[in-house]
Amino acid sequence: MKKVSIIGATGYVGIELIRLLHDHPEVEIKDLVSKSSAGQLLVDIYPQFRGSILNDYQLRAMEDFKPEESDLIFTALPHGVSQNIVSELYGKGTKIIDLSGDFRYHDVKVYEKWYGVKHKSPELAREAVYGLVELNREKIKGAELIANPGCYVTASLLGLLPLVSFEKADLNSIIIDAKSGVSGAGRSLKENLLFTETHNTMKAYSPGVHRHSSEIEYVLNQFLTGKYKKTFGSLKDQIDLETEEKAKILFTPHLIPIKRGILATIYLDLEEQSSGSEIMELYQRAYNKERFVQVLKDSLPEIKNVAGSNYAQLAFRYNKRTNRVIIISAIDNMLKGAAGQAVQNMNLIFNLPEETGLEATALFP
Amino acid sequence: MKKVSIIGATGYVGIELIRLLHDHPEVEIKDLVSKSSAGQLLVDIYPQFRGSILNDYQLRAMEDFKPEESDLIFTALPHGVSQNIVSELYGKGTKIIDLSGDFRYHDVKVYEKWYGVKHKSPELAREAVYGLVELNREKIKGAELIANPGCYVTASLLGLLPLVSFEKADLNSIIIDAKSGVSGAGRSLKENLLFTETHNTMKAYSPGVHRHSSEIEYVLNQFLTGKYKKTFGSLKDQIDLETEEKAKILFTPHLIPIKRGILATIYLDLEEQSSGSEIMELYQRAYNKERFVQVLKDSLPEIKNVAGSNYAQLAFRYNKRTNRVIIISAIDNMLKGAAGQAVQNMNLIFNLPEETGLEATALFP
Amino acid sequence: MKKVSIIGATGYVGIELIRLLHDHPEVEIKDLVSKSSAGQLLVDIYPQFRGSILNDYQLRAMEDFKPEESDLIFTALPHGVSQNIVSELYGKGTKIIDLSGDFRYHDVKVYEKWYGVKHKSPELAREAVYGLVELNREKIKGAELIANPGCYVTASLLGLLPLVSFEKADLNSIIIDAKSGVSGAGRSLKENLLFTETHNTMKAYSPGVHRHSSEIEYVLNQFLTGKYKKTFGSLKDQIDLETEEKAKILFTPHLIPIKRGILATIYLDLEEQSSGSEIMELYQRAYNKERFVQVLKDSLPEIKNVAGSNYAQLAFRYNKRTNRVIIISAIDNMLKGAAGQAVQNMNLIFNLPEETGLEATALFP
Amino acid sequence: MKKVSIIGATGYVGIELIRLLHDHPEVEIKDLVSKSSAGQLLVDIYPQFRGSILNDYQLRAMEDFKPEESDLIFTALPHGVSQNIVSELYGKGTKIIDLSGDFRYHDVKVYEKWYGVKHKSPELAREAVYGLVELNREKIKGAELIANPGCYVTASLLGLLPLVSFEKADLNSIIIDAKSGVSGAGRSLKENLLFTETHNTMKAYSPGVHRHSSEIEYVLNQFLTGKYKKTFGSLKDQIDLETEEKAKILFTPHLIPIKRGILATIYLDLEEQSSGSEIMELYQRAYNKERFVQVLKDSLPEIKNVAGSNYAQLAFRYNKRTNRVIIISAIDNMLKGAAGQAVQNMNLIFNLPEETGLEATALFP
Repeated sequence: MKKVSIIGATGYVGIELIRLLHDHPEVEIKDLVSKSSAGQLLVDIYPQFRGSILNDYQLRAMEDFKPEESDLIFTALPHGVSQNIVSELYGKGTKIIDLSGDFRYHDVKVYEKWYGVKHKSPELAREAVYGLVELNREKIKGAELIANPGCYVTASLLGLLPLVSFEKADLNSIIIDAKSGVSGAGRSLKENLLFTETHNTMKAYSPGVHRHSSEIEYVLNQFLTGKYKKTFGSLKDQIDLETEEKAKILFTPHLIPIKRGILATIYLDLEEQSSGSEIMELYQRAYNKERFVQVLKDSLPEIKNVAGSNYAQLAFRYNKRTNRVIIISAIDNMLKGAAGQAVQNMNLIFNLPEETGLEATALFP
Repeated sequence: MKKVSIIGATGYVGIELIRLLHDHPEVEIKDLVSKSSAGQLLVDIYPQFRGSILNDYQLRAMEDFKPEESDLIFTALPHGVSQNIVSELYGKGTKIIDLSGDFRYHDVKVYEKWYGVKHKSPELAREAVYGLVELNREKIKGAELIANPGCYVTASLLGLLPLVSFEKADLNSIIIDAKSGVSGAGRSLKENLLFTETHNTMKAYSPGVHRHSSEIEYVLNQFLTGKYKKTFGSLKDQIDLETEEKAKILFTPHLIPIKRGILATIYLDLEEQSSGSEIMELYQRAYNKERFVQVLKDSLPEIKNVAGSNYAQLAFRYNKRTNRVIIISAIDNMLKGAAGQAVQNMNLIFNLPEETGLEATALFP
Repeated sequence: MKKVSIIGATGYVGIELIRLLHDHPEVEIKDLVSKSSAGQLLVDIYPQFRGSILNDYQLRAMEDFKPEESDLIFTALPHGVSQNIVSELYGKGTKIIDLSGDFRYHDVKVYEKWYGVKHKSPELAREAVYGLVELNREKIKGAELIANPGCYVTASLLGLLPLVSFEKADLNSIIIDAKSGVSGAGRSLKENLLFTETHNTMKAYSPGVHRHSSEIEYVLNQFLTGKYKKTFGSLKDQIDLETEEKAKILFTPHLIPIKRGILATIYLDLEEQSSGSEIMELYQRAYNKERFVQVLKDSLPEIKNVAGSNYAQLAFRYNKRTNRVIIISAIDNMLKGAAGQAVQNMNLIFNLPEETGLEATALFP
Repeated sequence: MKKVSIIGATGYVGIELIRLLHDHPEVEIKDLVSKSSAGQLLVDIYPQFRGSILNDYQLRAMEDFKPEESDLIFTALPHGVSQNIVSELYGKGTKIIDLSGDFRYHDVKVYEKWYGVKHKSPELAREAVYGLVELNREKIKGAELIANPGCYVTASLLGLLPLVSFEKADLNSIIIDAKSGVSGAGRSLKENLLFTETHNTMKAYSPGVHRHSSEIEYVLNQFLTGKYKKTFGSLKDQIDLETEEKAKILFTPHLIPIKRGILATIYLDLEEQSSGSEIMELYQRAYNKERFVQVLKDSLPEIKNVAGSNYAQLAFRYNKRTNRVIIISAIDNMLKGAAGQAVQNMNLIFNLPEETGLEATALFP
């Protein structure tokens, strides 16, 4: 049994990691570190663990935490904070999976521009391996430090990557209209997250300027310039993606009155006429061996079909009238968009079957 | 007091009309016609009217209804059905406001293509006046038959019209990603409208092929070819919109787990660089005298700020990086998107102040 | 036009008062006083008023407020705070309707015990008139200071009062299981009021020890000892309620994931067998002339049938097996449970028809 | 690996069984029988199973189903229908767990009175073992036919049983006010289960006359007359429960706008004064060895803490003022209230650890 710990255990992502690790047959939870709740029983904050093996688990302070006793550490901390902790932990033989935005850009200039924070460990940012499993599986297996992708980014990239490698796609036309449940905002005490302000309503926020825009665009462009080997559904056997062409995307997130789940509706122009079957071939090539990505044909993704599971569901429609493709992508933001993908990464690092501890299907109704 | 009647009184739109007319100081409800519930008391189906002046109101069958006793009739019926009823009622001196899709296209070929139904009264379709008040106020005042716009269409056109007359807008780039509460689907017994199937989830439907696509596009193109006089926010004093250029839009609706409200997020490319202030000027010209359209500057529309009211709230963001405009438009689908706009039309026809009976602000929280 | 002001205008009750007064044909809003938001535009905090006559309304600080310029002042403040403000305002000729718990008990000892706060104006508490209109209409008309009842209390008393005067009722058997929407908790920044903590779940709170217990019991016992004249549905023509018998109630509130509305399910033992028709007679006597109380016979109250309106809907079932009565009472906690009832009180004080500005029916769906 | 099948696989309970069995390490799903959907792929009806081992699973018709190929069959069918199927399946060596109401009463007269249906297999009803694990564990282990308890009944009995054996409890005073999520109503096409009719509202139904009343009362009285051996928390070492005294309960269910979960608030009079610690001792005796029942002390149960898990959470408050006990009980109606408890029963029958496949904690947020 591998020993794993979580720093930042009492945020929503932390608690979701605990839930998954609690059910995982090959790992043992070592330490749960929480700044705000050190010394308290886990069940006094999250009563859903009462009766489980975590019934008597006491949260630990950072100063009492010995990283070397764990085989792997998840850091589920705010950006800015995470870099400091990770740079202390790094290089001591313990693997790290970081769930913040701090290590998702090799080039910290992009990070600094969009996050408005100075990056103190640019060399670590260059070392970090981007943890979108379907894109980067091989590198993940040997990584010391994983940057777990953003939730919106996961939903968007899974939908986009096959088409981005399609030579007929207009890389400047990408528009992503994404909708997220409220858990994405974390357990923060803000007036606009109160039930009375959020229920039975909906809004857009940060239209065109959300941080995840930059992450989506950054990874797409890394992909286009050949930083990621996999051809990802190209219709040719070999394709030279070392291109000067760059994708420029427009991303607008919305808050919807549900707890979990992201639905991203993505729009893309084609430069020549295509067909549904040609595009379907791209998606099937990209994902037909993937355990956690489903490409639907006759139906459309719905959040309820993935919420509570690590699956992504995708569908697309080719709109001949406008020569555009509409791609719809649904994930659980807490699972494939955060803790589930982190465990998938952990499984790869530990050389376990990728789906270990992640086989639950959506909780419905 | 004017006498008004409703045919199709027990659907959700019918009941919303009853609610508004019940509170309206200048009209009196004459007959409420319902095929399915004729003979029953209104309060036995909709108990919210208990105690009101409609406490003892009995629903009437079509065969017992005498149209000539009403000054105005609202028809709130399914498309296809409505044409038959309206063509019987028309021309007898009673004004008609039809809330179906049947009379929204002067050219019935477009209707027939998108609705898959033969139109039996093409001449009436040509007579009908399109009831988007902000676009067509003058013609509405003298109309015999109003085609009340679709809910998605109202939200979309109010957001788009000022920009469509902007010479820098790429009329082929328009993408509308719209989200609607479940009341938009009416009171129909379908499995996918059950609470357990709709709550805490979200989905897209009819991506790119929803009927309201055609209505949005049809009206935009009528507008572009000068069928509607108003310049609608053009920055020049005079603008010749008699253009051959046509708009082609892509529209995708989504179902969200709220009762009422539509949020439309609209994307549009510009052909040249512009600025927020230049675009704001267009919106202000278009709407600064409009009672029911609010253009927000520093905040964004939310459904809760309009649900329960006849207001539309709009905002836009000019995204310099991609040279696109993101427009966000929020309405209550039952009010500005249906019954409220119908009453606004009625007020114009009766030469009443436009806001009579429509002054309620959103019900919040 | 009467001039009215609100102190505490930006809480949820304050904002609901503004909404009602904005639509009220016989009053004019004079000052909106807010400690936290003085100097700001109302629409910057509550954008739903954009476009209305309150579009340019600026919130005022207490020190800039001149009470004598208003005919009536609503105080919508936390308990404890309200007493101080009301005692300053009182006696200067301006009527006051207080929506806090501070003046609901003539005997401040009860207040002090349940609220854990010293009462600084016991003589004012003795002067205050309890504003449950259906119980106390005549006294309200001439009152200087109204104590507007608690939301749970209104739902409970309307359901209970007819039966409490019934000689067969066991006054020690009353159990009230009440369920409230989240707006009842106000706009307070508490973790347990976040959407993620409140949606798709339910809980009880303060079982048996909520403050409203004491208010329900206090008023019932005042009623039993003849402090309120009306016989309230007794089956005898004259009934001497000056009894030594006292009611002792058990009250448990619950939080449900809706915005507005209270449903109270009330249980009461009978000492002798009775019948549905005998009990119905009590309810009909009590309420058949009441504009805002509906007694249902064949159906049961639902929150959706009253939410958005000032109506209460009641029904009861006599359970012969156990010789108990189950009473179900539904109100909108923001309206009949707070702001609506306050306006109803105001109408009485101003000698207006009781329903003025309160005729809206429930907003449905 | 044991082979198990489900008859009635596509109702909500059926689908929840599939989800649990899919994750269960010791069983293999053999046949999924569905009358309405025979021949279809499971994933075409419930897309959440796409990508799982059930990806290609085809639903089977009853006539193609061979019961003898399964070790155990779950019947998840409407009452009335279930008796017919079960009586055909019974006695052929395959164990049966029935989730309908058909076999929950040894005395079919009670069943016939409350269900309004003639029972065709009274002898089987006498054979069936009542599957409330905490009450009846030993008998369940050897049973051929299990009657899985009703959802409301499970929540109520777990809360009540310890106190019912308490000699100071007034057995005629029990009032149960229960609240259930909408999944409890199944996937039935009824107007009152539409999202628009159910969301943001709440109602009571069948007050005092719901079928589960009779099941709760029946089991309580069986228990009181010594039909179940366990003393269930009595404070004496030995207690003679063979009493003539009978419990008479009053039960009122409510529908709340959540998907899953039941919260039951139970009221009970005591005949003598007691104390919180005395009562706590009863609950601890009853449940301190139970894996799936948690007794909370300082906090109260909430549905979110159990939804998605097989746990029940209980708390009580002794109200000294009225000498009553308030018990609050929360379960997931689909799990501990249906499919989870059925799997717990199956584990006992197969001599597996009771928690096998049931260790998931609540899905939160």
